[in-house]
Amino acid sequence: MSSVQKVIDTDVHNTFRTPTDLVEYLPEPWKSRVAGSGIGNPWHGIWSPIGVFRKDCMPPTGGPAASDPEFLVENLIEPNHIEYAILTGDAMNICVNPDPDYAAAICTAYNDYLIKEWLPVHKSFKGAMLVAGQDPLLAAREIDRVGGHPDIVEVLMGSAQRAGLGQRQFHPIYEAAVRNGLPMSIHPGAEGSGGTYASAAGIPTRYLEWHTGLSQNYMAHTISLVCEGVFEKFPELKFVMLEGGLAWLPHLMWRLDKNYKALRSQVPWLNRMPSEYIRDHCYFSTQPIEEPDNPNHLIDLFNMIDAENFIIFSSDYPHWDNDAPMEILKRLNPDARHKIFYENARKLYNL
Amino acid sequence: MSSVQKVIDTDVHNTFRTPTDLVEYLPEPWKSRVAGSGIGNPWHGIWSPIGVFRKDCMPPTGGPAASDPEFLVENLIEPNHIEYAILTGDAMNICVNPDPDYAAAICTAYNDYLIKEWLPVHKSFKGAMLVAGQDPLLAAREIDRVGGHPDIVEVLMGSAQRAGLGQRQFHPIYEAAVRNGLPMSIHPGAEGSGGTYASAAGIPTRYLEWHTGLSQNYMAHTISLVCEGVFEKFPELKFVMLEGGLAWLPHLMWRLDKNYKALRSQVPWLNRMPSEYIRDHCYFSTQPIEEPDNPNHLIDLFNMIDAENFIIFSSDYPHWDNDAPMEILKRLNPDARHKIFYENARKLYNL
Repeated sequence: MSSVQKVIDTDVHNTFRTPTDLVEYLPEPWKSRVAGSGIGNPWHGIWSPIGVFRKDCMPPTGGPAASDPEFLVENLIEPNHIEYAILTGDAMNICVNPDPDYAAAICTAYNDYLIKEWLPVHKSFKGAMLVAGQDPLLAAREIDRVGGHPDIVEVLMGSAQRAGLGQRQFHPIYEAAVRNGLPMSIHPGAEGSGGTYASAAGIPTRYLEWHTGLSQNYMAHTISLVCEGVFEKFPELKFVMLEGGLAWLPHLMWRLDKNYKALRSQVPWLNRMPSEYIRDHCYFSTQPIEEPDNPNHLIDLFNMIDAENFIIFSSDYPHWDNDAPMEILKRLNPDARHKIFYENARKLYNL
Repeated sequence: MSSVQKVIDTDVHNTFRTPTDLVEYLPEPWKSRVAGSGIGNPWHGIWSPIGVFRKDCMPPTGGPAASDPEFLVENLIEPNHIEYAILTGDAMNICVNPDPDYAAAICTAYNDYLIKEWLPVHKSFKGAMLVAGQDPLLAAREIDRVGGHPDIVEVLMGSAQRAGLGQRQFHPIYEAAVRNGLPMSIHPGAEGSGGTYASAAGIPTRYLEWHTGLSQNYMAHTISLVCEGVFEKFPELKFVMLEGGLAWLPHLMWRLDKNYKALRSQVPWLNRMPSEYIRDHCYFSTQPIEEPDNPNHLIDLFNMIDAENFIIFSSDYPHWDNDAPMEILKRLNPDARHKIFYENARKLYNL
């Protein structure tokens, strides 16, 4: 591109310097727990042979990739003309921890840490506050506690859940998000641990299968959110699907609309075709974008569903399959490109 | 269409007249069990308000839809110019029964019943023999017992499984299928019962969500079969995906191929791109076909992956969302239409 495309990056993983970064933000008994053994969430046991961090993102000051705010600005924000970066952190696997009190305490500590140690560092930094759904009323209380902070722009949960996110137990969280003018978002990581699912046919064997199958989880949550009437109950709610893929949307919209025509008596609270709720309420981040041999196929597929209006750019920095902002989606027309890289997220996050 | 399109229907559900039809084929103690309380598989508890049977398929002789072979010929086979109908039965939910001996006994009884009461009735009838994967060695023995029957053309399992079907415990089944020159096939029904999954985010609430989400299970099995190297270990094996949808294939092929490029070290037994194994070894049945508002979108999507070479027609008669053979896929060119309605299945089943 000749002119500079302004960018909003909707998924940047600010990372802890050490496993004990949250200790000072925690009350007892959690302070001693984390000081002694880190956060300690369940783990699915599925290993990536190439790790999950890009090798070229290590801060010269030491520590893990994306753990140094100044280097993150120098390495990601400035060279890519990123006007805003939504910091999504590295703690969302707390959403599968068995203990709801511990999960809520970690979220509170993380949000305080985010607000104190990250958001003030650079004008591009905006925060995704973290909540855990094990106790939805505690999550709602946390949203009311910090959701009004001027640099908090969304409420994040792990996509690994023991139930579809449309189900009624989660609604107090959405009510609180709307009350605070914030979209919800979900991000993968813990799928297959803590009593959650990693695919629709059990725990896959290796990281290749696990990562490829993560989209299934996003399909399940999208179906659930729409059919359970979440977007009728909360008409202002927006839901951001981070890192779940995109190219499955035509399939899901077509299949769900077809089934709705036969089975609408089961969901009398819906007043429109299911795909219309998806288009109007859900946003899907680009990374990791599907890469057909013929890139025009992806563009053709986007055009079938007017995807340019609900896709938002994400780099997933500093993770292994990070897409370089200027390299993808080159074949989009300039208007669609501007929407995906900037305008859709600007409106969504009210930036 | 002006000229008559010959049809092979790859999914016709011959149905029991009564829940005790298998009693005479069973040894004790299973004979008494089924005589007393039917087959009695686990059930997911998800109810369809419109039932699962078409209302226009009831035999005038009484009994459930598709329970009368003569009426099935008159109602489905003759008016639709079906040269061969693969009878897939109504018993595949046995694949989630907790008891491997009972599951194997029901499969054996069903196969004897199919061979005696259905296959001789009409020249169009071909049989999908049933096996249950709880004890793969028993399943392999059953394939060797009846797989050589001239009218048995495939080995069927339920798609509801506690693990991805590529995993090694299932390989003796595939070895036996290849030894008998038969393709494997899977069919949904029990997803969410018997310790199996109904989506990648738990049990959905209603039939609308459940049915829409079934495709996720097929995605998981497809990923598993390819990545576990099943098609390298059994190069002659074909795998038929009945009733799992189609339009998700571009997404899955693109995502899996992309991930393979980064993670191929985990699957050193693969020698080709994952999507090539899908194209060469997997067949996907048409019913229920996705129905975009603009039907050309489905055709465009098929063309992206050369789907005409591995899609096979199915009516799913007499189930509720049965597609009328001549009404769908009208926009395909004649050559593609002939492949999907007839030629692909003819080659696959060696008819």
